[in-house]
Amino acid sequence: MAPAVRRLRIAVSGLGRMGARHANHFLHRTPKAELVAAFTPADNEIAWAKENLEPWGVSIYTDYDEMLKHEGLEAVCVATVTTVHAEQTIKAIEAGKHVLCEKPLSTKLDVCQQVLATAARNPRVKVMCGFSRRFDASYVNAYKLTLDGVIGRPTILRSQTCDRYDPSGFFVAYAEFSGGIFVDCNIHDIDLALWYFSAESRGKTLPRVKSVMAVGVTALEPDLAKHGDVDNGVGVVEFYDAQIAYFYSSRMNPPGQHDMTEIIGTKGKLVVNASPMTDLLESHMSTGIQREISQNYYERFEHAFVEEARQFTDAVLESKEVPVDLTSSMEAVRIGVALQDSLRSGRKIFFDREGGRVDEDGAARAKL
Amino acid sequence: MAPAVRRLRIAVSGLGRMGARHANHFLHRTPKAELVAAFTPADNEIAWAKENLEPWGVSIYTDYDEMLKHEGLEAVCVATVTTVHAEQTIKAIEAGKHVLCEKPLSTKLDVCQQVLATAARNPRVKVMCGFSRRFDASYVNAYKLTLDGVIGRPTILRSQTCDRYDPSGFFVAYAEFSGGIFVDCNIHDIDLALWYFSAESRGKTLPRVKSVMAVGVTALEPDLAKHGDVDNGVGVVEFYDAQIAYFYSSRMNPPGQHDMTEIIGTKGKLVVNASPMTDLLESHMSTGIQREISQNYYERFEHAFVEEARQFTDAVLESKEVPVDLTSSMEAVRIGVALQDSLRSGRKIFFDREGGRVDEDGAARAKL
Amino acid sequence: MAPAVRRLRIAVSGLGRMGARHANHFLHRTPKAELVAAFTPADNEIAWAKENLEPWGVSIYTDYDEMLKHEGLEAVCVATVTTVHAEQTIKAIEAGKHVLCEKPLSTKLDVCQQVLATAARNPRVKVMCGFSRRFDASYVNAYKLTLDGVIGRPTILRSQTCDRYDPSGFFVAYAEFSGGIFVDCNIHDIDLALWYFSAESRGKTLPRVKSVMAVGVTALEPDLAKHGDVDNGVGVVEFYDAQIAYFYSSRMNPPGQHDMTEIIGTKGKLVVNASPMTDLLESHMSTGIQREISQNYYERFEHAFVEEARQFTDAVLESKEVPVDLTSSMEAVRIGVALQDSLRSGRKIFFDREGGRVDEDGAARAKL
Amino acid sequence: MAPAVRRLRIAVSGLGRMGARHANHFLHRTPKAELVAAFTPADNEIAWAKENLEPWGVSIYTDYDEMLKHEGLEAVCVATVTTVHAEQTIKAIEAGKHVLCEKPLSTKLDVCQQVLATAARNPRVKVMCGFSRRFDASYVNAYKLTLDGVIGRPTILRSQTCDRYDPSGFFVAYAEFSGGIFVDCNIHDIDLALWYFSAESRGKTLPRVKSVMAVGVTALEPDLAKHGDVDNGVGVVEFYDAQIAYFYSSRMNPPGQHDMTEIIGTKGKLVVNASPMTDLLESHMSTGIQREISQNYYERFEHAFVEEARQFTDAVLESKEVPVDLTSSMEAVRIGVALQDSLRSGRKIFFDREGGRVDEDGAARAKL
Repeated sequence: MAPAVRRLRIAVSGLGRMGARHANHFLHRTPKAELVAAFTPADNEIAWAKENLEPWGVSIYTDYDEMLKHEGLEAVCVATVTTVHAEQTIKAIEAGKHVLCEKPLSTKLDVCQQVLATAARNPRVKVMCGFSRRFDASYVNAYKLTLDGVIGRPTILRSQTCDRYDPSGFFVAYAEFSGGIFVDCNIHDIDLALWYFSAESRGKTLPRVKSVMAVGVTALEPDLAKHGDVDNGVGVVEFYDAQIAYFYSSRMNPPGQHDMTEIIGTKGKLVVNASPMTDLLESHMSTGIQREISQNYYERFEHAFVEEARQFTDAVLESKEVPVDLTSSMEAVRIGVALQDSLRSGRKIFFDREGGRVDEDGAARAKL
Repeated sequence: MAPAVRRLRIAVSGLGRMGARHANHFLHRTPKAELVAAFTPADNEIAWAKENLEPWGVSIYTDYDEMLKHEGLEAVCVATVTTVHAEQTIKAIEAGKHVLCEKPLSTKLDVCQQVLATAARNPRVKVMCGFSRRFDASYVNAYKLTLDGVIGRPTILRSQTCDRYDPSGFFVAYAEFSGGIFVDCNIHDIDLALWYFSAESRGKTLPRVKSVMAVGVTALEPDLAKHGDVDNGVGVVEFYDAQIAYFYSSRMNPPGQHDMTEIIGTKGKLVVNASPMTDLLESHMSTGIQREISQNYYERFEHAFVEEARQFTDAVLESKEVPVDLTSSMEAVRIGVALQDSLRSGRKIFFDREGGRVDEDGAARAKL
Repeated sequence: MAPAVRRLRIAVSGLGRMGARHANHFLHRTPKAELVAAFTPADNEIAWAKENLEPWGVSIYTDYDEMLKHEGLEAVCVATVTTVHAEQTIKAIEAGKHVLCEKPLSTKLDVCQQVLATAARNPRVKVMCGFSRRFDASYVNAYKLTLDGVIGRPTILRSQTCDRYDPSGFFVAYAEFSGGIFVDCNIHDIDLALWYFSAESRGKTLPRVKSVMAVGVTALEPDLAKHGDVDNGVGVVEFYDAQIAYFYSSRMNPPGQHDMTEIIGTKGKLVVNASPMTDLLESHMSTGIQREISQNYYERFEHAFVEEARQFTDAVLESKEVPVDLTSSMEAVRIGVALQDSLRSGRKIFFDREGGRVDEDGAARAKL
Repeated sequence: MAPAVRRLRIAVSGLGRMGARHANHFLHRTPKAELVAAFTPADNEIAWAKENLEPWGVSIYTDYDEMLKHEGLEAVCVATVTTVHAEQTIKAIEAGKHVLCEKPLSTKLDVCQQVLATAARNPRVKVMCGFSRRFDASYVNAYKLTLDGVIGRPTILRSQTCDRYDPSGFFVAYAEFSGGIFVDCNIHDIDLALWYFSAESRGKTLPRVKSVMAVGVTALEPDLAKHGDVDNGVGVVEFYDAQIAYFYSSRMNPPGQHDMTEIIGTKGKLVVNASPMTDLLESHMSTGIQREISQNYYERFEHAFVEEARQFTDAVLESKEVPVDLTSSMEAVRIGVALQDSLRSGRKIFFDREGGRVDEDGAARAKL
């Protein structure tokens, strides 16, 4: 019997590392979604799709615009390189397709604004940026406790994104387009700050940034400097109304991926992943006790990505709000870009309460 | 497009707590399986199936024999109450269907033997008993390390199965049919001992039990004594050729489910779940630092059950050996039953090298 | 100025590894004690004493009886080889000196009884056997919580003593006199069971042993068999009134010393040292996350030994009960000896409520 | 017999909370030191001293200058309120006494310089500032590994000092004299940065600060603002030659004291106290798994303070370098004061390579 269940007909754009995973999630792990199409211009990705998607009834396209015309298509998951996220998202919205777009919308703030403007003109279309940590069980649990007031007022947030060192030099080339370490890595941590700090208003209002400051070093890859980037960055974001977030990102964490977060409130602290481990196994050997950690963000967040696909699907099918708000996703880019600017200029950057950049003296006046 | 992929047409028998989960796993989380039918005689389970399975094209049966005749059916997952596991498994085998049966095959050794005999007469049918821990990432990782010789010769295995206390008295009634705590709970730990101790022979030969001894107490539920059972049990199994396994089981672990295992070799020790936690979150509150643990075995082993469904499916589709050997599953019952006997009689039980029970003096002679 | 404080004048007998440590503890880390004398017949220990004790005003003796006559001597810490513990303790008691004796009093039960009889005849003399774990902060904390009823009735106790493997073969020779692994290692765990299980009566009555059973293997040192000993032992002790303790001991733990204990009550469980570590340092390296553990029992229990010296000193100076009761220390030996007997005979051993050994049928009768 | 051992005759100045502890450490836990005198002007402290020190032969003084004249006095441990640290240290040096001074020397940089100048004029006198963490086993172990090159080049240091919240308001009053949270709390973390970052030169040269930036909030104690202070502070210190340290301090950590540090190198990371716990005990209760942490810095660092006393004593007796260099201790104050200035002004502060403060444009020029 053919299922009588209403399922969301979705396509995935881009079948690189993350795109192929999204395709699998929608195809095999999101019961209420039906992967009907996929787009990629790359030969190796087409070959992969012919072997892994086509036998399941998925149509393969090498032209994005053609794919948008696939009969009955309702939604698109944009998982191409960052530089075309915005363009594809805008096209999909204009074609009336719901969009789940990989983070970030763009590394450029004005481009983000175009996406938001397009979305605003098409209010029936759901658009969501994929900040996967918001779907991770530990972070979700921490958010519920925060909403419940268990830790009092969230006041300080510390968060880090640390990748295993990749000696191939890949991330040097990648830095040309990534927007830099604060936009590429810490964007997740910034998003968490916006999420937890807005718990006070139950998500209704975002905290307003007051100042940002960043420093960094190139410890293993001096060539990153060419792109105004570093392999270790420390950033501090001060918000109006007495909240502070501070971040660390690294491209050289030896055992693997170690992303961790502390949400510090006036009555308690919630800590996610202070003692990372891949699974529940420890080895007691003559050299000591040893455990392993995730090798990359997907090992750490696989289940969060699946949950993200499910919740996006549910939101569309049930005409609910998508769980990650677009304005917040753009604000994360704005803060990430400001941190990267601060890193490059060596200067602290100040904002007024409306979000405009001001100079130090303007800041001093704002303080009065 | 209809998928061109060859998928295993499977049915689930029994839609109680665990049966419903198996149905979901085959329906939504095992890409190469197609859940085509389900059987249950219970009204509430039928109602659940009509809402959750039928819309996906699954046929619901209230007669097990009828279900076996479902057109194109290739395999059955038996997840009914333990007392009918064997009967349904035998019927399915005789109907030429592959079987994944929930553990244990039976709490009675002679009934297990009937299942094995039936399977032996139908060598083209795959039959597997579902020992879920063998599919858990941590245990699998530990097994690989053991095979690789990292810990030398596995010599001692300690393993426990501890359930959260259920004050409803459910498990007192349940004890009438469960076979007792060593057959119901520690059967998993016994299976692990057989698995890790046979790593030496790369799974070819099982360790041979030499003696078993068990004691126990009824700390919270004195009525368990009526069924010759306890709520806390300690058992020791001695194997020929210098290997020992010792077990603990409890029905009264306050924070939740805590199953843990140590595989102790001559060069190292592997420990699974020494510091249990539900997720990666810890709360730092004025009362101290706190974390939560799984509330039941499904919270702990959900992914293992899914993996079990996938590997069973693959084994059938690709005509491979099933990953858990039936002989081993019967041996686990034999040891569990002996432990329960020892608990009840207060006596240590001895075996000769062929597996026959002998008295103490026979054991002494065997030693010479 | 000379101190006006009243200090206990104590001597240490035996300056081997542990004796030298006791000497240092009384000399430098027990403010209310004054180490006035030390005895050793061994040349290397005399040399050590001349360098490390004599300059601090400690008199060195090569004759134990002479040392007992040291002017003003009030107490003796017996830290010689186990075989002379009892003899020296008896002599000291008869000379009116208080005694802190290293565990065990003796590996022979009748010899223990002689010590107790001598102590009983000299009620003004304080005699204590040094079960150091009772002075460890974690165990003390667990005991307080148990007394406070936090875990309900203590029902099951699991405890292990695991030493780092010493490839020199030392412990094979040592096994000739040690009494065997259950008397030498698990004696501590047995003592803990007696301690925690007597918390119900606030220490007034000891739990009464009902049966013991032990098995073991020689995994790395087959020559241990000559002394009826093993390098890995598992023992189970059943007490009347529904309490069970089970033990593991090993001479081959690769990373170092790992002693751990679980006290399992009807409402909660207390766990000491589930995740051992030397200090608070972890290394995150390309091979994973690593930490080290104590290399021997002294690294783990150094502060407990110091606390033991202080509490013994206080008990004498203030004429209080010593914190470890002699009867309990003898009971620990009795249980340890029975476990070792069970290991050697392969038989389960039964006791009546008065502590007499009975055969299985006697046990069956006692059950009725 | 009176000891023939040469012991350092030392006095303690100030018998408040920390002074009393220092007195006990030198009296009872530093074998090679002899506490001969103590000074305090406070009645309650005199009463304490008469009960706890005088009976051990310690002379009590109510006049610091008189105490300095105590016959045979060789050294002083200054543990009074911070505001008189420098004055008493200078007097002691000029009287030819070796000095162990509690941190910080002063909250004012020019006062620190007077101490260093006095010390420079009296090169035979040993002067050391008590940065206790340098004597903690975990930090010492981490330092050895760093020296051995295990983590490559130390590049990033993260460190925090978090106190349990004291609702009495004590620390508001205290803030008037403490120098502020960066000088009072993070001074330890700053010291650690100087220590680990100078490991490259094996301690010969200190890293040179390039910029500092700090922000903070008053989450629970708004009155701190009167003293230009906060109860939560975040600071970032950038050093020339690509090293960064970042700090967090809090006065409101609910479970107790949580000081932790990460030393991140190009090949590995060392983490001290990621998972704090008081002892090795965990409770498994119906509410989850729970452990406690140190309630204050002394519970955490008691053994480090004792080790500090011993190493200072050894350095004096053996005419060795003291283990903590005075220049480094002054540099820690300089950085702490700059962070506090940055917190108050809201501005990032820049330094040239000679340590002079420069404006932003000067910094930009320095960059070229």
